[in-house]
Amino acid sequence: AIRELLANIHASEVADLLESLPNQDRQRVWWLIDPDSAGDVLAHAQESVRVSLLELMQPQEVVEATRSLDTDDAADILQDLPEALIESVLLAMDEQNRQRLASVMSYPEDTAGGLMDLDVIPIRADVTLDVVNRFLRRRSEIPDNTDSLVVVDRDNRFLGVLPLTAMFLNDSERTVGECMNTSAEPLPATLPAAEVAKKFEQRDFVSAPVVDEENHLLGRITIDDVVDVIQEEAEQTFRRMAGIEENDLFAPIWSSTRRRAVWLGINIITAFVAAAVIGRFEATIQQLVALAVLMPIVASMGGVAGNQTLTIMVRGLALGQIGKSNIQPLLRKELIISFLNGLLWALVVGVIAYLWFGNHLVSLVIGAAMVITLASGALAGALIPLLLKRIGVDPAIAGGVLLTTVTDVVGFLSFLGLAAIVLALV
Amino acid sequence: AIRELLANIHASEVADLLESLPNQDRQRVWWLIDPDSAGDVLAHAQESVRVSLLELMQPQEVVEATRSLDTDDAADILQDLPEALIESVLLAMDEQNRQRLASVMSYPEDTAGGLMDLDVIPIRADVTLDVVNRFLRRRSEIPDNTDSLVVVDRDNRFLGVLPLTAMFLNDSERTVGECMNTSAEPLPATLPAAEVAKKFEQRDFVSAPVVDEENHLLGRITIDDVVDVIQEEAEQTFRRMAGIEENDLFAPIWSSTRRRAVWLGINIITAFVAAAVIGRFEATIQQLVALAVLMPIVASMGGVAGNQTLTIMVRGLALGQIGKSNIQPLLRKELIISFLNGLLWALVVGVIAYLWFGNHLVSLVIGAAMVITLASGALAGALIPLLLKRIGVDPAIAGGVLLTTVTDVVGFLSFLGLAAIVLALV
Ligand SMILES: [Mg+2]
Ligand SMILES: [Mg+2]
Ligand SMILES: [Mg+2]
Ligand SMILES: [Mg+2]
Ligand SMILES: [Mg+2]
Ligand SMILES: [Mg+2]
Ligand SMILES: [Mg+2]
Ligand SMILES: [Mg+2]
Ligand SMILES: [Mg+2]
Ligand SMILES: [Mg+2]
Ligand SMILES: [Mg+2]
Ligand SMILES: [Mg+2]
Ligand SMILES: [Mg+2]
Repeated sequence: AIRELLANIHASEVADLLESLPNQDRQRVWWLIDPDSAGDVLAHAQESVRVSLLELMQPQEVVEATRSLDTDDAADILQDLPEALIESVLLAMDEQNRQRLASVMSYPEDTAGGLMDLDVIPIRADVTLDVVNRFLRRRSEIPDNTDSLVVVDRDNRFLGVLPLTAMFLNDSERTVGECMNTSAEPLPATLPAAEVAKKFEQRDFVSAPVVDEENHLLGRITIDDVVDVIQEEAEQTFRRMAGIEENDLFAPIWSSTRRRAVWLGINIITAFVAAAVIGRFEATIQQLVALAVLMPIVASMGGVAGNQTLTIMVRGLALGQIGKSNIQPLLRKELIISFLNGLLWALVVGVIAYLWFGNHLVSLVIGAAMVITLASGALAGALIPLLLKRIGVDPAIAGGVLLTTVTDVVGFLSFLGLAAIVLALV
Repeated sequence: AIRELLANIHASEVADLLESLPNQDRQRVWWLIDPDSAGDVLAHAQESVRVSLLELMQPQEVVEATRSLDTDDAADILQDLPEALIESVLLAMDEQNRQRLASVMSYPEDTAGGLMDLDVIPIRADVTLDVVNRFLRRRSEIPDNTDSLVVVDRDNRFLGVLPLTAMFLNDSERTVGECMNTSAEPLPATLPAAEVAKKFEQRDFVSAPVVDEENHLLGRITIDDVVDVIQEEAEQTFRRMAGIEENDLFAPIWSSTRRRAVWLGINIITAFVAAAVIGRFEATIQQLVALAVLMPIVASMGGVAGNQTLTIMVRGLALGQIGKSNIQPLLRKELIISFLNGLLWALVVGVIAYLWFGNHLVSLVIGAAMVITLASGALAGALIPLLLKRIGVDPAIAGGVLLTTVTDVVGFLSFLGLAAIVLALV
């Protein structure tokens, strides 16, 4: 019954199902899957799940499963095998498939070359549309997402693209060269995946040709794979901001624990720095315990305000919306916003603190600390991502910890420091 | 010179440029843009920027600018006009355009109906491919992203799709009915945009037909608009988790300040709840000020661990990866991870606290509080999103505040509470 159910749903849904199952159930269901669709299911599964399924397979089974896949999908799967097995799987393939895979796998996974398929249909500029028509009719199929044919010269150099729709709109006696679109720019194989995604998003491509440095046609990238890149980029930022592993949802407990421990370990250093600041003011707290009660409020508000600025900067940088021309006005804007909000909440907190402890000095001190901390939070939230980016670190991965360190230290220092001064004067 | 530059770059890049400029420069550049591409630029711009540009335009100019756009893009632009102006722009249009726009605007923006274009090419099942071919040749153009024609019956009811590639692979004497794909499911107009995106992602569609409840063909959705939906969904989650406004990066200072103040106001309630917990233990802190120094560490670690679980759950729920079948094992996993990490960091913090204050009771207390707080953080991080989802609130928007409330309260309560008990016993 399960076998029938599996045969009737789409490979991507089978993959979703496998992802959602605990490891043992997953293996049991895997054996029920039709071998013909095993490759499709692997291609749609998340990396950690794929790795766990590949462990169950013999090299020859991997060869069978990947035979009918797009080259880019087959390459993704092979790259998840242990180093030693990749060799034997490649050896078990026929010559043509082996070469195709090697050419895709020679580029990093996150570049245009790693994303490309080799199923592009090249044509020559001097033939007529009628010849192209007969050429297509001789094929048994046309690859998915083929919205255009790629025009090349005799050295396989890119000349332009011929949209399939041009075949219907033009007289069949005209040549490819007359009807092709020469303004389409091909993507260099070394272009980073994020840039590829941006081009597709901005130009609304369905597919785009990929070329080497000498403009030789290598393959093409299709929108379905770009959609996966866009999803994965966003997921990565989420995970990095929280300090969790790739595909943590379905990763084994032990590896999740280890990766998350790293983040907690970094945070504990931060926390001890903040504690050390408080430690300098033990005498002040001893004198007025209300300070210990109120001090987390200042740090917490600074953290939230700073995080708002940080999130905006991290995403703005990732999407390429922030550059030299607008950094200054953006910085000014963030500082003004945090100053206005600092004043507003200083007033609110000051009044509540007065009603609670009946001490107008404490009220004044917490209000002043609030304004200082929110402004520092905005400044740090804006500058930390810029600095991290400049030194080549992903602002998403380290920005949050650095920011909390700043807002905690400034929050405790300004509040307790001002309190110490005021108490000494009284 | 700027005018020439603008004429030579793509409308999406002009939109990016306008987005990155301060308001006054933006207006100055806007007047230099060729009126023919004004509509395209508006379609690519972010909502807040679009609104600011629309304020500069007369109704008749809006009519001109949107004339050549896809219906869905024109509808998006119109929906950003003030209520009163929408009327006058619609009245200034010709009858046909007005009706097309009204039909898209009758569906919410975030449903299949709101996303659809009306440029679908319907054909009948009983005609031959040759007839279709001649029908296409009579057109002056075929809309972008047309990978298939939609087959309908005489009542305009959906029957199947005919991929354009089928026109090349089949004999031209065969009928559409013989060559069409009947397994393609059309999307109901009321399907939420997130579900539309999931279908496209899983099935690798380039376009998909949209139908009403009686299976009448209404239009089609194209992948370029789905890519925008996917981007926007991820951005929305980022913004909601940080409590910032839509398009905050380019919004006016005053509206950014207001929206962010709301989030800070909610956080201050949380912070006061935590302060009230500390307030119950003033006497204990007075007795041993080291407690005030160490207490933020416990709350901070609980917050970070809880946030890791929360992020995983929020994204897992948004992507539909979490369901009845795997909630239990996931919950167990999160609890085990946080317990293991709790033990590890309890040990580390306990040792450091002992070296610092030389008090083994304080070390024991902070270790125990650490384990309790990290476990509560994981539990809250997992359950809060599930509860919010059940009551129909986006877990991204409120999860963070609720989580911090739990980890702060549990962190301070367990640490100071245990310390009070131990100090009373000594
Ligand atoms: Mg999936
Ligand atoms: Mg592919
Ligand atoms: Mg991989
Ligand atoms: Mg790949
Ligand atoms: Mg686009
Ligand atoms: Mg693919
Ligand atoms: Mg843009
Ligand atoms: Mg459109
Ligand atoms: Mg809108
Ligand atoms: Mg729309
Ligand atoms: Mg896909
Ligand atoms: Mg559209
Ligand atoms: Mg669009």
